[in-house]
Amino acid sequence: MIQTPYLLFLGDAPDALAAKVAQGIKDWRPDVSVGQYRMEGCKADMGLPDMGLAEAKAAGAKTLVIGVANRGGIISPAWKKVLVMALEEGFDIASGLHNLLHDEPELVAVAKACGSELHDVRVPEVEYPIANGRRRTGKRCLAVGTDCSVGKMYTAIAMEREMRERGMQADFRATGQTGILITGDGVPLDAVVADFMAGAVEYITPDADEDHWDLIEGQGSLFHVSYSGVTMALVHGGQPDALILCHEPTRTHMRGLPEYQLPTLEALRDTALTLARVGNPACEAVAISVNTQHFSEGEALTYLAGVEAEMGLPAVDPFRQGAARLVDALDGIKGRGAAVAMAHDPAIAPDA
Amino acid sequence: MIQTPYLLFLGDAPDALAAKVAQGIKDWRPDVSVGQYRMEGCKADMGLPDMGLAEAKAAGAKTLVIGVANRGGIISPAWKKVLVMALEEGFDIASGLHNLLHDEPELVAVAKACGSELHDVRVPEVEYPIANGRRRTGKRCLAVGTDCSVGKMYTAIAMEREMRERGMQADFRATGQTGILITGDGVPLDAVVADFMAGAVEYITPDADEDHWDLIEGQGSLFHVSYSGVTMALVHGGQPDALILCHEPTRTHMRGLPEYQLPTLEALRDTALTLARVGNPACEAVAISVNTQHFSEGEALTYLAGVEAEMGLPAVDPFRQGAARLVDALDGIKGRGAAVAMAHDPAIAPDA
Repeated sequence: MIQTPYLLFLGDAPDALAAKVAQGIKDWRPDVSVGQYRMEGCKADMGLPDMGLAEAKAAGAKTLVIGVANRGGIISPAWKKVLVMALEEGFDIASGLHNLLHDEPELVAVAKACGSELHDVRVPEVEYPIANGRRRTGKRCLAVGTDCSVGKMYTAIAMEREMRERGMQADFRATGQTGILITGDGVPLDAVVADFMAGAVEYITPDADEDHWDLIEGQGSLFHVSYSGVTMALVHGGQPDALILCHEPTRTHMRGLPEYQLPTLEALRDTALTLARVGNPACEAVAISVNTQHFSEGEALTYLAGVEAEMGLPAVDPFRQGAARLVDALDGIKGRGAAVAMAHDPAIAPDA
Repeated sequence: MIQTPYLLFLGDAPDALAAKVAQGIKDWRPDVSVGQYRMEGCKADMGLPDMGLAEAKAAGAKTLVIGVANRGGIISPAWKKVLVMALEEGFDIASGLHNLLHDEPELVAVAKACGSELHDVRVPEVEYPIANGRRRTGKRCLAVGTDCSVGKMYTAIAMEREMRERGMQADFRATGQTGILITGDGVPLDAVVADFMAGAVEYITPDADEDHWDLIEGQGSLFHVSYSGVTMALVHGGQPDALILCHEPTRTHMRGLPEYQLPTLEALRDTALTLARVGNPACEAVAISVNTQHFSEGEALTYLAGVEAEMGLPAVDPFRQGAARLVDALDGIKGRGAAVAMAHDPAIAPDA
């Protein structure tokens, strides 16, 4: 568990894109983002108060979060100087960089001397069990995509926010580095050893009240040959009651795989449901979340209306329209209790 | 790469079952099994010549393979004495135990002093890449199962042997501990970090001659919620041209998961083909391998005939009947070259 609130370290970010982790944290957790720390030449700006270390400490910040990535994901000497000072000031440090904090002897030594924590969110901190497949109480929703990076994390967090605003019990369950830094907790699923992937997903989505929803961050895609095993572990370990199908309609091929076309939303629905019903025979695909960032407002609305008619499910861009209709789509889900009477048959065909 | 030939270490095995790794090696690689080393009280016997260390060394043995597991998978003090002597005698040691050779300081020190190798086949020895999905030359066959431990390894090795006897180019590709000890090479897929699983499968099934077949050892099952992510990585990383469907008809539930029923062979075929065709649109399910060990000869033949009629595919128990008809079933597979004209569309439905 990473202590909040955060001071967001933007370093010497050459542009806004380099600080997209900080942007995600600031967008989704402005309440825990007390300020930003910028070095000379920093070109990113979260619109948060610029603070020095002592000032941020006085404002209550507990963890310095590295919200910036430079080329190669390394920790530069210039950064390291600031990080050492932060530890000495009493901060914990959290990072999703490839270059681990724990691989820097100086940081490890200073952290130890100061009694501070170093959080490398790329490294699993828990010994996860092998999945037992036992049916859990509470309800779970999983975002699955036609491809990687189509808006699965955004969709799940937007739904959590909407549900909490409605007074519902809901927790976003982070499964990737940025999600973990946003929430302070979760599993870096792509870094877990194969045998324990599904067990890790079970671990972060435990038994809960019957009206509690986990909004599970998806990873990869069942149709992305590099990462589909990770997705599969989410589909089975997560035991979802509801799937949200996520799509980005302007992709010309699977991310990083120029030879591979995207599947249709129908293919995603049928394949994901068939597999999800192995773990939860009551699972339903309830809605579609489309990332329409490359469309004009008019194009987006036309496209969404077309998808909605074709698929017979609500189709929404939560960034443009909010997540209300995605959350409404969960209303019909009765969850596990209602499914007890159903045969537990993985061969059950999707309805649609 | 583990050096052959082997001296099989049976230790103080309390019964034959405790030495099943040695049994697998002796059954499949009698040519590299020069002898067995038994300690006092050993109740297992591979029918190989009993040898001391010096004698086995003189007979050409290069690696002492731990072919026995005691309760907890640990290395007992009594064993360790023999292992140290073996290193001093110039042997390498290979082990698939949970208790790693490398976690025993004495073994590490002696191996270093003697210039010998310790092989822990539970630990990946290669930094595998992330899968790139690039189409590879040569042909690949993957065994997929309705459940774990239904005979996928046995099927793949039996096919390799049959193909080599026919003068075909064929390599069994091990993906589990026993398979690696049998062949001396492979990937312990369940111990690979999630992001690199499919890349590891690509790595062990590289470009090859157009008439070369990789026989890829399957792991887990797409319908086994604990391990399906590992299976998924094989289906996508392996780019199989042909699938062999493996089944054990007397299972009453999924292995280790009492709440879960086995899928039908039809469900396995349809789901595995849909997913395999993402990576290789030409993939076909060509035959069925049934483990009929719990049936009488008559029951087995009746069952196999029934499955064959129902599925329209050859159904064989390779242990009873040999793998000839499984290999024959590969004849019709034209491989990647012939598939170039096909649309690369993951939504293509299975034929059957």
